[in-house]
Amino acid sequence: MTDPEPFEPRFDTAGLVAAIAQDSVTGRVLMLAWMDGEALAATRETGFAHFHSRSRGTLWKKGETSGNLLKIDNIQVDCDQDAVLLLVTPTGPACHTGATSCFYRKLGEKGLARVDSDEK
Amino acid sequence: MTDPEPFEPRFDTAGLVAAIAQDSVTGRVLMLAWMDGEALAATRETGFAHFHSRSRGTLWKKGETSGNLLKIDNIQVDCDQDAVLLLVTPTGPACHTGATSCFYRKLGEKGLARVDSDEK
Repeated sequence: MTDPEPFEPRFDTAGLVAAIAQDSVTGRVLMLAWMDGEALAATRETGFAHFHSRSRGTLWKKGETSGNLLKIDNIQVDCDQDAVLLLVTPTGPACHTGATSCFYRKLGEKGLARVDSDEK
Repeated sequence: MTDPEPFEPRFDTAGLVAAIAQDSVTGRVLMLAWMDGEALAATRETGFAHFHSRSRGTLWKKGETSGNLLKIDNIQVDCDQDAVLLLVTPTGPACHTGATSCFYRKLGEKGLARVDSDEK
């Protein structure tokens, strides 16, 4: 066992790190959003994903309006600490379109087509 | 069947979209990097992940030096087209540290600890 390393998130010039949400059970990547220090702290304190809305410039509890929360099971941090991976249990569709994942379309030669609902 | 929707990536002010690489078989999220139009085009043309190096300001074929390429199986695009999800078959560890995934540490109360190698 080695001692834990310090968590020193490397925020970008806008004060943000990228945050990927992945379903703990299915492994499906649900969404990508952004966190500042406030969103990270709120996520760790409450156990539910909070992000920073770049358009509104405010803290955003994911699902506060829709009820589709993301319960945090585990937070992982990448090698250079400028991205985090949230392993989550979603209480509903993660996408505002009603899709399970925001990544509900795949890129083909002719454009974007819907992926099968059970496709990773 | 509906017609494909156009692929119109929404590049940020730096001309980039976020790109998540996920192992097609294990479902493990491997890394997060950035793509400009050139990296997207090179990825689609060659079938191997290319990114834009923000530090060097250049096109970067993932694994060109290390040999640890990411073969593209599928590219998915999120609802607002500012992030892409690459489903890939890696030819080796994705992280420059030698770890399978750049997300090899989890956040605990005391800091960062390594995750088990088989943990998503």
